[in-house]
Amino acid sequence: MKCKICKETANIKLDYCGLKLCKPHFIEYIQKRAKRTIKRYQMVRREDKIAVALSGGKDSQTLIHILKQLYMDSNPLIGIHIDLGIDNYSQESAKFVRILCDELEVPVQIINIEKEYNFTIDMVKNNKKIKRPICSNCGLVKRYVLNAFAKKFGVNVLATGHVLDDEVSILLSNLVNGNFEQLIRGGPFLPSTDVSMIARAKPLYEISELETTLYAHFNNISFIGTPCPYDVNATVSSYKEITNKLEENQPGSRYLLLRNYVKIYKKAFKTYNIEKQQEILHCNVCGGPTIRNVCAFCSLRKKMEGNE
Amino acid sequence: MKCKICKETANIKLDYCGLKLCKPHFIEYIQKRAKRTIKRYQMVRREDKIAVALSGGKDSQTLIHILKQLYMDSNPLIGIHIDLGIDNYSQESAKFVRILCDELEVPVQIINIEKEYNFTIDMVKNNKKIKRPICSNCGLVKRYVLNAFAKKFGVNVLATGHVLDDEVSILLSNLVNGNFEQLIRGGPFLPSTDVSMIARAKPLYEISELETTLYAHFNNISFIGTPCPYDVNATVSSYKEITNKLEENQPGSRYLLLRNYVKIYKKAFKTYNIEKQQEILHCNVCGGPTIRNVCAFCSLRKKMEGNE
Repeated sequence: MKCKICKETANIKLDYCGLKLCKPHFIEYIQKRAKRTIKRYQMVRREDKIAVALSGGKDSQTLIHILKQLYMDSNPLIGIHIDLGIDNYSQESAKFVRILCDELEVPVQIINIEKEYNFTIDMVKNNKKIKRPICSNCGLVKRYVLNAFAKKFGVNVLATGHVLDDEVSILLSNLVNGNFEQLIRGGPFLPSTDVSMIARAKPLYEISELETTLYAHFNNISFIGTPCPYDVNATVSSYKEITNKLEENQPGSRYLLLRNYVKIYKKAFKTYNIEKQQEILHCNVCGGPTIRNVCAFCSLRKKMEGNE
Repeated sequence: MKCKICKETANIKLDYCGLKLCKPHFIEYIQKRAKRTIKRYQMVRREDKIAVALSGGKDSQTLIHILKQLYMDSNPLIGIHIDLGIDNYSQESAKFVRILCDELEVPVQIINIEKEYNFTIDMVKNNKKIKRPICSNCGLVKRYVLNAFAKKFGVNVLATGHVLDDEVSILLSNLVNGNFEQLIRGGPFLPSTDVSMIARAKPLYEISELETTLYAHFNNISFIGTPCPYDVNATVSSYKEITNKLEENQPGSRYLLLRNYVKIYKKAFKTYNIEKQQEILHCNVCGGPTIRNVCAFCSLRKKMEGNE
């Protein structure tokens, strides 16, 4: 098996397109693919300050490595990691984030939510008054904190490590369950439509988990190998099983579904919904973006203070 | 296990809703479900003449049995079967259609395409000049012939035996592949928008293959058990495998996807596409509905006559 580019021994064959590549040309190929996604969806403008949300996992570690190569000469780049206060797991995650950012010479901000907001995800998990699943609350906290600190640090675009596998599974789940709001808001790029909201980009939207794993491996990028102890989301796993089967039967079909969603379906859903779109309000407590008087994060925070 | 309705021994438990039913109450339940689908999508008006497209397979045999029970006192009902000229298979199919229609005392019209149009599906299959897959051509022939003869027989609505399993597999395939035209035209009911087109209804749209199989079994309905010799559509099987897995992991999700498609997505796609909709023309040769000068059926027929 020979590399398509240099004819040396290939290390990988990509099923969805038949391409055979050696290690260096695979790395180059993935960087080019990420760049294509960024350009295609106009994620980064000249002089934008970019922040990468770092969890310590393989996808976001790979993402900051790629963005460093693509933007080191043109755009300011920082990492933001949230210390969620999940026992052992959070300490471990932060370690991997620090190691990589040191290596890449990318400044990193570690936000400790206990210091900032007086509660941790472990405390939310153990609070019996809180009924919402822990993964929903954790997602809410991460979105809020990342947005708030990205704003504080003067960031223009917040990049997250969402990969094709996750995105297509969530898309299928949203299609099955008729989550129309999420179908309208989903996709690779959410531009800032209000001064309180930082634009969000997913540069790995069209890159698979297998590819980020190989990219990390070929570049000796270390990452936290264990999943979050609370991550037992059976529904997501179930949709992942199905979309993996789809890919196995017809390589490339996950990408195709995502592309058609962004190119056609999402636009159609948006047009259809035009009159029902909710106005963005500002939270009475923190001033952040919300569709209610008090944002979901401030409501959670209040509950954790025992004031409600 | 006891029947939810009569507390006698139940013969079946439906996974997607947990309902346990005995034989007679299962039959009643399926008839009610078909009636709900017909009402929900306004498929049949008072005094409409209904034709059922009969292939001899379990789904269309079940359909005519159900429609006979639902409409025997109110609407004229006939069966239409097309003798496609597929060796052995066509003779066998016609036999099962005749047996059931005799039993049900429903008049049946058998259309022999060789007599009517001077070619058979076997001849199309063996014609090396014809490149389109045989299943596409056969589908085209069936749609055309059913419409033409339904019109001739004064039919107002043509009912076909498409079941949930097929519909959701085709829907997923259309979503993945971005078949936007089909996504707009798909669904349980296609009303007549032109005098040349008979309305098409799928009363089993929300009923699964397992349910039609059981319905046929419980009613001693005989049907052709072997698939069409040309039916080796790997793509459809692949999507069926995936949607079956979806159903297995989360019972009821196939129905949910179809409902959300009809209730929301299809409407959104239609709205989005409003300016691009193609006008229906009439074929220069046969006068039937088409979007070109000569309809696809007449083009095929001409090829089979060797005139092209």
